[in-house]
Amino acid sequence: MRSLIDIDNFSVEEIDGLISVAKNIIANPAKYSEACRGKKLATLFFEPSTRTRLSFEAAMLELGGSVIGFSEASSSSAAKGESVADTAKVISAYADIIAMRHPKEGAPFVASLNASIPVINAGDGGHCHPTQTLTDLLTISAECGRLDNMTVGFCGDLKYGRTVHSLINALARYKNIKLVLISPDELKIPSFIKEETIKKCGMEYVETASLENALPELDILYMTRIQRERFSDPEQYERLKDSYILTPEKMQLAKPTAAVLHPLPRVNEISVKVDDDPRACYFRQVRYGKYIRMALILKLLSEVNEPKLTPSFDGEDYIRETHTCRNVRCISTCEQELPKIFKITDKNARIARCVYCEGKINY
Amino acid sequence: MRSLIDIDNFSVEEIDGLISVAKNIIANPAKYSEACRGKKLATLFFEPSTRTRLSFEAAMLELGGSVIGFSEASSSSAAKGESVADTAKVISAYADIIAMRHPKEGAPFVASLNASIPVINAGDGGHCHPTQTLTDLLTISAECGRLDNMTVGFCGDLKYGRTVHSLINALARYKNIKLVLISPDELKIPSFIKEETIKKCGMEYVETASLENALPELDILYMTRIQRERFSDPEQYERLKDSYILTPEKMQLAKPTAAVLHPLPRVNEISVKVDDDPRACYFRQVRYGKYIRMALILKLLSEVNEPKLTPSFDGEDYIRETHTCRNVRCISTCEQELPKIFKITDKNARIARCVYCEGKINY
Amino acid sequence: MRSLIDIDNFSVEEIDGLISVAKNIIANPAKYSEACRGKKLATLFFEPSTRTRLSFEAAMLELGGSVIGFSEASSSSAAKGESVADTAKVISAYADIIAMRHPKEGAPFVASLNASIPVINAGDGGHCHPTQTLTDLLTISAECGRLDNMTVGFCGDLKYGRTVHSLINALARYKNIKLVLISPDELKIPSFIKEETIKKCGMEYVETASLENALPELDILYMTRIQRERFSDPEQYERLKDSYILTPEKMQLAKPTAAVLHPLPRVNEISVKVDDDPRACYFRQVRYGKYIRMALILKLLSEVNEPKLTPSFDGEDYIRETHTCRNVRCISTCEQELPKIFKITDKNARIARCVYCEGKINY
Repeated sequence: MRSLIDIDNFSVEEIDGLISVAKNIIANPAKYSEACRGKKLATLFFEPSTRTRLSFEAAMLELGGSVIGFSEASSSSAAKGESVADTAKVISAYADIIAMRHPKEGAPFVASLNASIPVINAGDGGHCHPTQTLTDLLTISAECGRLDNMTVGFCGDLKYGRTVHSLINALARYKNIKLVLISPDELKIPSFIKEETIKKCGMEYVETASLENALPELDILYMTRIQRERFSDPEQYERLKDSYILTPEKMQLAKPTAAVLHPLPRVNEISVKVDDDPRACYFRQVRYGKYIRMALILKLLSEVNEPKLTPSFDGEDYIRETHTCRNVRCISTCEQELPKIFKITDKNARIARCVYCEGKINY
Repeated sequence: MRSLIDIDNFSVEEIDGLISVAKNIIANPAKYSEACRGKKLATLFFEPSTRTRLSFEAAMLELGGSVIGFSEASSSSAAKGESVADTAKVISAYADIIAMRHPKEGAPFVASLNASIPVINAGDGGHCHPTQTLTDLLTISAECGRLDNMTVGFCGDLKYGRTVHSLINALARYKNIKLVLISPDELKIPSFIKEETIKKCGMEYVETASLENALPELDILYMTRIQRERFSDPEQYERLKDSYILTPEKMQLAKPTAAVLHPLPRVNEISVKVDDDPRACYFRQVRYGKYIRMALILKLLSEVNEPKLTPSFDGEDYIRETHTCRNVRCISTCEQELPKIFKITDKNARIARCVYCEGKINY
Repeated sequence: MRSLIDIDNFSVEEIDGLISVAKNIIANPAKYSEACRGKKLATLFFEPSTRTRLSFEAAMLELGGSVIGFSEASSSSAAKGESVADTAKVISAYADIIAMRHPKEGAPFVASLNASIPVINAGDGGHCHPTQTLTDLLTISAECGRLDNMTVGFCGDLKYGRTVHSLINALARYKNIKLVLISPDELKIPSFIKEETIKKCGMEYVETASLENALPELDILYMTRIQRERFSDPEQYERLKDSYILTPEKMQLAKPTAAVLHPLPRVNEISVKVDDDPRACYFRQVRYGKYIRMALILKLLSEVNEPKLTPSFDGEDYIRETHTCRNVRCISTCEQELPKIFKITDKNARIARCVYCEGKINY
């Protein structure tokens, strides 16, 4: 039995397999319309996310299965103080697979350790959102016909954008990807992504503040929103914001074969006037999101009778119960009787990371 | 592809067709129990309305289809600032048909302009609620055996009652309908309904303040609630309210064949002691509501492959971007990048109406 | 047509029948997977209770039926002032069976008086929760192989614990049950349970403050939570609380065949370290809860065409409209036009009980 908590849980081959199944579903939806008859998906959304939740629900229904769940914490037992671990055990009696969204980072991982059914992380705070990354990969593959030999531009808030970091991480495993990182100075990609992912994998990259300069060479433009709150100086925001709004005028600079992606919801960072441009893929991306989730549900349910591989956290690579995670959004700060465990990631620098949220400590 | 935003979108023949299909479903429910197998209804309720939502959901399930959605805005992406237009495009990837309830007037119309699937208006503020009107028409037709040659009394709040205005509007297209408008002075029917609908269509009508005087001649009594807040003078309310409460005593004045309707929820304007009277139709009306929605879903899904007729809003009948709607509840006041468009309805008086909410402006 | 409002609505034979069907479902789930095809369960949860709601929904889906409903009052028509009686009549048009949770005691009973479909009480305030009791009985029967000749310990808050009172009441109808009532002085079982149930039925019982002393003789240990708020003296709570927490150490005192039950959610009254003990039944109990609800839905739907037996409340055993229930959580305090009725339970002492919430009055 497997779960999907972090995109790294799957090998490149497995991801390519999912993409291939998703494309097969797109080509032959009827073939899959009874594949999950009698199976139940539990959508446990401890914070609202309509698009993601409905994508999972539509996916399960199109496989012939059914859905139970809740769409916000106030409707859940969490309000009565139930731990994530207990919720996972209880829901294992009701459903065949779980999709969990939670504001606490690491909560779906804790669920996967305790559930007797597969758990899909549908977003845990600022930490992971692997089905968004799978969606992005299927979109690129379906729209461009390949996942390597590509120039991919990321535009907007590259500092806090979880989907950006995760997609870069996933692309790092493909060949000959060139990154163009387009953002204002305040919102540049964090150095740990540059050091630990981009440089480590030898990806070519450039950083620029100009969307217009970058556009002509991009195969993919991945847009994200720039939030006013991110700027310490409001005037700076006012001066900059328009240059990161995608308009039909700017689209004239792009390749005829370019593809524009956006994780949605969009506020005003892409003008609605771009929507009719055939290169605007973001609403088709929504559809790909449903199909990759169908492929994912099929995969996890097909592996449900294989033994569950639970990480042991034993041995000298792990630090147990001596330190506390300093990430206030980590599930370990509020989950009852959860052992505090860190994985040593750098012995020389005495750095370890929380096994739940990947928060860094010095030990 | 068609949507149902306003009851006027359908011709009398189409409405009669829906009523006929609904009666056929009532007679042979099993014949329809697989009609929508594999189809999904999205119930997008940006404000709660249990009865309407569950009526749509029961309708879809009895057709063999399934349901996704949300029951209040806090569970939706709107909380993150997504526009109604984008929501409609996203949901088009997940479902086959939408039922939308929204506090902003015109929101379902904006959704229908952007969705690639049919949209049913399940109530937009004080504007339209066409499936309630269809429910009322089926109830009258099924209980009385006809939709013309009838004396129809409307009792209560005729000033603000959206369902009343809409049903009068719909009945105006049938023959030989006589209206009896029963209300206190403060809550009389607005003059624009009298001028633009009742008189224009040549419907016979009387206005009265006495329910008891009106009762003996009515074939239909359509009850609505009188709210204390509607009165500037609380004493006036106290003096009047009891005369608009339907009791078993007052029912003795009604015809033996009369039918009492109410859109529900009822608070105290009909005594529960009337519920067992065979002329009390309001709970059967709930059931008719489900059946007419089944007929409507069938109709819209059957037309889904026909070309979508989008209004052009071009030409000299329209005013574009020069004026702003003054109705604070209009979707055009909050929807991002929505063009402000008005249809000229009176060239001489220089009056135009917002294409979204029908709000009036002088241009 | 029958409803289940209070566990007393069913005879011991009927309960044994339900348990037998539930075991049959466990043994042959496929045999039942289409039993409710085309049927709809309405889950009307006027207050959130995820576990109970999802248990009902999973039960209906595993019978091949479908589900509509709401998970909290803000999404319901109650916010618009609709009475429970009207809601029950409306939902009767949409569904085949209702599971209702309501904060007001007696609300599901009022619903059952007005619905034309069966109503299951899924918890009404501190009053009844009969499907929890059925769950407990199935758990005991399945885990211990019998429902009589047993020593059953109840530990924790025996004063306010609704599930404890209800299970004692149910066990009172089986043979040779010995009760061990384990609680601090502040939270001892109420004297009316002792007088009216335990002593009346001639059940053997002991009261003790020590879980450790009681453990060795128990066949069943039913754990409940002790809440800080229940104590007038916080120091008292601090001094006591640990002695009522079940740990692996304390489990060493228990019989090898003992079974530990808990209605969940658990907070910290059972250490998670006990979870892997094979005698820890509380997560299997969740599963039994689903199966007994399946059996219950089947039973009530199978009896739906039998005449509905409505209590008459006539005659000299009842007091009508002369007194008001003093229980502020009683549905009779807020439901419109609900007749106030009390059943005389002690003529000499002039005691009567509210027919909705069983609240006591002196008349």
